[in-house]
Amino acid sequence: MNSLSLFKRASRCFDDYPSLAKLVVICTISGGCYVAYADANGTGSAPPVLEEIKKKKVVVLGTGWAGTSFLKKLNNPSYDVQVISPRNYFAFTPLLPSVTCGTVEARSIVEPIRSIVRKKSIDIRYWEAECFKIEAENKKVHCRPNSESSKNGKEEFVVDYDYLIIAMGARPNTFNTPGVVENCNFLKEVEDAQQIRQSVINSFEKASLPTFSDEERKRILHFVVVGGGPTGVEFAAELHDFVNEDLVKLYPAAKDFVKITLLEASDHILNMFDKRITGFAEEKFQRDGIDVKLGSMVVKVSDKEISTKVRGNDGEITTIPYGMVVWSTGNGTHPVIKDFMQQIGQSNRRALATDEWLRVEGCSTIYALGDCATVNQRKVMEDIAAIFKKADKDNSGTLTVKEFREVIKDICERYPQVELYLKNKKMRDLVDLLKMAKGDVAKEAIELNIEEFKKALSEVDSQMKNLPATAQVAAQQGTYLANCFNRMEEAEKNPEGPIRFREEGRHRFHPFRYKHLGQFAPLGGEQTAAQLPGDWVSIGQSSQWLWYSVYASKLVSWRTRVLVISDWTRRFVFGRDSSGI
Amino acid sequence: MNSLSLFKRASRCFDDYPSLAKLVVICTISGGCYVAYADANGTGSAPPVLEEIKKKKVVVLGTGWAGTSFLKKLNNPSYDVQVISPRNYFAFTPLLPSVTCGTVEARSIVEPIRSIVRKKSIDIRYWEAECFKIEAENKKVHCRPNSESSKNGKEEFVVDYDYLIIAMGARPNTFNTPGVVENCNFLKEVEDAQQIRQSVINSFEKASLPTFSDEERKRILHFVVVGGGPTGVEFAAELHDFVNEDLVKLYPAAKDFVKITLLEASDHILNMFDKRITGFAEEKFQRDGIDVKLGSMVVKVSDKEISTKVRGNDGEITTIPYGMVVWSTGNGTHPVIKDFMQQIGQSNRRALATDEWLRVEGCSTIYALGDCATVNQRKVMEDIAAIFKKADKDNSGTLTVKEFREVIKDICERYPQVELYLKNKKMRDLVDLLKMAKGDVAKEAIELNIEEFKKALSEVDSQMKNLPATAQVAAQQGTYLANCFNRMEEAEKNPEGPIRFREEGRHRFHPFRYKHLGQFAPLGGEQTAAQLPGDWVSIGQSSQWLWYSVYASKLVSWRTRVLVISDWTRRFVFGRDSSGI
Ligand SMILES: Cc1cc2nc3c(=O)[nH]c(=O)nc-3n(C[C@H](O)[C@H](O)[C@H](O)COP(=O)(O)OP(=O)(O)OC[C@H]3O[C@@H](n4cnc5c(N)ncnc54)[C@H](O)[C@@H]3O)c2cc1C
Ligand SMILES: Cc1cc2nc3c(=O)[nH]c(=O)nc-3n(C[C@H](O)[C@H](O)[C@H](O)COP(=O)(O)OP(=O)(O)OC[C@H]3O[C@@H](n4cnc5c(N)ncnc54)[C@H](O)[C@@H]3O)c2cc1C
Repeated sequence: MNSLSLFKRASRCFDDYPSLAKLVVICTISGGCYVAYADANGTGSAPPVLEEIKKKKVVVLGTGWAGTSFLKKLNNPSYDVQVISPRNYFAFTPLLPSVTCGTVEARSIVEPIRSIVRKKSIDIRYWEAECFKIEAENKKVHCRPNSESSKNGKEEFVVDYDYLIIAMGARPNTFNTPGVVENCNFLKEVEDAQQIRQSVINSFEKASLPTFSDEERKRILHFVVVGGGPTGVEFAAELHDFVNEDLVKLYPAAKDFVKITLLEASDHILNMFDKRITGFAEEKFQRDGIDVKLGSMVVKVSDKEISTKVRGNDGEITTIPYGMVVWSTGNGTHPVIKDFMQQIGQSNRRALATDEWLRVEGCSTIYALGDCATVNQRKVMEDIAAIFKKADKDNSGTLTVKEFREVIKDICERYPQVELYLKNKKMRDLVDLLKMAKGDVAKEAIELNIEEFKKALSEVDSQMKNLPATAQVAAQQGTYLANCFNRMEEAEKNPEGPIRFREEGRHRFHPFRYKHLGQFAPLGGEQTAAQLPGDWVSIGQSSQWLWYSVYASKLVSWRTRVLVISDWTRRFVFGRDSSGI
Repeated sequence: MNSLSLFKRASRCFDDYPSLAKLVVICTISGGCYVAYADANGTGSAPPVLEEIKKKKVVVLGTGWAGTSFLKKLNNPSYDVQVISPRNYFAFTPLLPSVTCGTVEARSIVEPIRSIVRKKSIDIRYWEAECFKIEAENKKVHCRPNSESSKNGKEEFVVDYDYLIIAMGARPNTFNTPGVVENCNFLKEVEDAQQIRQSVINSFEKASLPTFSDEERKRILHFVVVGGGPTGVEFAAELHDFVNEDLVKLYPAAKDFVKITLLEASDHILNMFDKRITGFAEEKFQRDGIDVKLGSMVVKVSDKEISTKVRGNDGEITTIPYGMVVWSTGNGTHPVIKDFMQQIGQSNRRALATDEWLRVEGCSTIYALGDCATVNQRKVMEDIAAIFKKADKDNSGTLTVKEFREVIKDICERYPQVELYLKNKKMRDLVDLLKMAKGDVAKEAIELNIEEFKKALSEVDSQMKNLPATAQVAAQQGTYLANCFNRMEEAEKNPEGPIRFREEGRHRFHPFRYKHLGQFAPLGGEQTAAQLPGDWVSIGQSSQWLWYSVYASKLVSWRTRVLVISDWTRRFVFGRDSSGI
């Protein structure tokens, strides 16, 4: 695959940044500073917005991918926006695994939320606090500053909203496995990555001490990664490179003791990727000496041992000594969200269910996006009678092709699974489907009754898939929602969405549609796997450069871009630092 | 003053680094990487030293300025060296104040001790542990790893030594002021600087919250610096710049609330500097709005208030509300050193007393250097009889000028205060002094008895001064001691030091002599004061550039050099980051 076209395709991989950004790899180290300088100074401070009256209060919880992309795209000055998040910065999570081993510095991948919103001409205030309760009934959120002194509750405060946007992300999922919280490192926040970096160095220093037996040294330098998803795999790869490229030089004696094990409960690592990538990764890890144990489910973690149940082994429990565990098995629910879900009758779910317009089900003024939410696609079968009725304009009890043609677009927009089904079955349009349902009758004047209509659409809902919990989805949702808020008034007057099948009129907006732009899996040793839309797969060093380019261009500011690129350069020249700070 | 010559003089300001380093400012950002690359790869790994027998065990405690400069200069392979320090890196402390506000990143000023010693061809092992007890009698040090898990004492270990080198530095001195440990930030370690940086940002975030009254905001944004020495002054200046150059842009509302107060117990800040510098600094701070309160002694710190006793105010106590205090009032004693001093009968001292060869008094195999030690210069008056006796070769009871000439050099070397006295009194040599003592008798054949000799030297000891606790002293001591260790065997055979006046023979080595090379005081706003030897004083922006050049050239490795310079560049271009990490 031509790497230039690969770059073009891949650089669309997140949201729409100025195309200038794509030049970044070429102009960085030498010219980058000057460009950046112009950029940093080019924007004057925004004039204060005057009219305060009647402004709707929008409260945004969280400054991660979803919250930040919402704030960046929002440009309607008729809102009074308050942002609440315990971290006063946005973190570029795809580079977090690189922070764990010092390939990139923590500070290079964060940007203060105040710098991000300062250049906007709308009213945005930020509070460094965490929301600890959402009170949907009274349209209030309860917050507390995240400083130590506020633990006594004296400094708590309440913020009112007209619209609430929940983008609080997720917590690591421990599956309630005993000992995980006490003994494992997570990799979710910037602090986690810094902590892991220190722990790795500490392990090497500890294993070098004269007090320990070789047996103990082996244990201390046994690094276990739980979870073979992209994060776990990337961390294992980073750690392997750190050890073999840098640490062995300073700790030559440790070489014989260090071991990395990756535990994955399912049959393959990276199982959301193409089989070719999975295969390549498993082989590469084997060559690298990373011990990938598939079908291994962790059942308990004590302070020095980790117990796994290996599938097909009669449920036998294996216990292995370890020095450090990084737990990376996906997302659990934030306690605040859990509490809120109970309030609105959504308990027993992992994430807040929203409709296709990202509105929390049952709460017309609350939106949820990113990792804390999941879009609950409406099933065609639930609405089948309503759809039939809307389409059957003459109330004849049967649908003609003509009647049907008039609602096809709306059906496909409202129920994207229909379009997906047609595409997968290689049908031109819904009419083909109807024809199928009627047997091989080929005439245009085909007519269907409700039962036949149901039969035709019965398999469609099987195409529904949940969106992955990725930065890509979160960022696109943020952008989508900001665009809705920007055009709220116009859309009230001239709704632009599909027909409401159950009610009258049209939806105000087009529903959210996710556009998958591809995914990377860095595997260490300058090898990266890339899976782009249309099942394009590319593995190797060229994808690594693609990865560098795309990530550099997608960073949130020129400052972070210059820093990350100089971090990469520094790593090439001097290696990674092993100071225990 | 010509700034080139200024640079030349000042760049000698620490120890002797390769002169290549001085090119650093010119070649850095563009070419620096390449030079650095060559440097990083140019050294092969050292061949293992074979003969293990009979090697003397040298144990070094601490990897600060003193310990590291010792290790860097040591090149005699006949020692088995073990280094013990709780931090596995060397930190370039003069740039610590810059780390508090993000002008320079913490990681840019540290270098792993393993990287520093790895290139050496001698046997150096490093243990990341803290020494918690020195047992002089059995020549042992007791250590414990500084990891959490070792708190139960299980992982403690003991190291034997033939020679012990104590370079553990000092602790902040609180003068036992109540509340200081609980409520103040210190500025001694890299972690302290990182902590201060976070606290400053946190204060700004906290003051921005909607919950607080303006009164409270004022308190939260009141930063108090205790101690008007170079560190306190530099921190106050850094903080002022951080607030005014960067933070006010992101926290415009905070501008009216923020205040910096500097409390100094004596009559002037920077009182070890020339009066011109002190005056300039006090004026500049006044212009900047930094409230310098002289003659203010802190007597108590509570969680929100600091109480001071103002001199000349009838001992009245003033209490001011504050948000954050940085305590920087000089050095206290490390508990381990305190305990050791008790063992060897040196209690009631602030630092370990050594002789002029840096040997701890009363312990022939223990050396102490840097901030934890002080050189106890021998008084001439204590030895006057012995000196007279040694000089009076013919035992005549009187000294002739000829006899005297033969020991002059040794006297001046052994008692440097003598030389200093002569210089200050503008005398050519000791003979002039003797002539003085005899009245205006001008003939060469002058003869003195012991009483006259005593009289002549009676004022000399008033010239004795303690060495300052600076990196310069510590580094010179480390280098000095390494040179002694390097030539230990030769010097045993051919002692090169001055005559032993009380005993027979000569001292093995020349005593340690400190060479003061000047001092900087950065005052913020690109203004630095420099005081160079011979009372050269330079204040302003040219000294700031001198400061940049000297510090860049003195950094310990090419990696840190490139990083610090790119940090400075980044700061010019993008400002300092305000993310709370
Ligand atoms: C190590 C790692 C690597 C990843 N790599 C990739 C990748 O390469 N590509 C990709 O597409 N995705 C990647 N992801 C996934 C991606 O980061 C998430 O899907 C994305 O961050 C979700 O965005 P979000 O805004 O929902 O949540 P987050 O980005 O997690 O943001 C949540 C925000 O809510 C705030 N918050 C938390 N609690 C509260 C509270 N009580 N009150 C108020 N605010 C609160 C947090 O401070 C934060 O600002 C990675 C994730 C991790 C952890
Ligand atoms: C903020 C700041 C700015 C400064 N600026 C300057 C300047 O501009 N110019 C200048 O000349 N001087 C400056 N100084 C002073 C200078 O840093 C000190 O004088 C110098 O560090 C003393 O060197 P040292 O080796 O004795 O101690 P340190 O450098 O403090 O090193 C002590 C070492 O001992 C280790 N240690 C501690 N406890 C133990 C233990 N229990 N067991 C084993 N090891 C232990 C520590 O980890 C450390 O490695 C500054 C100091 C500070 C704090």
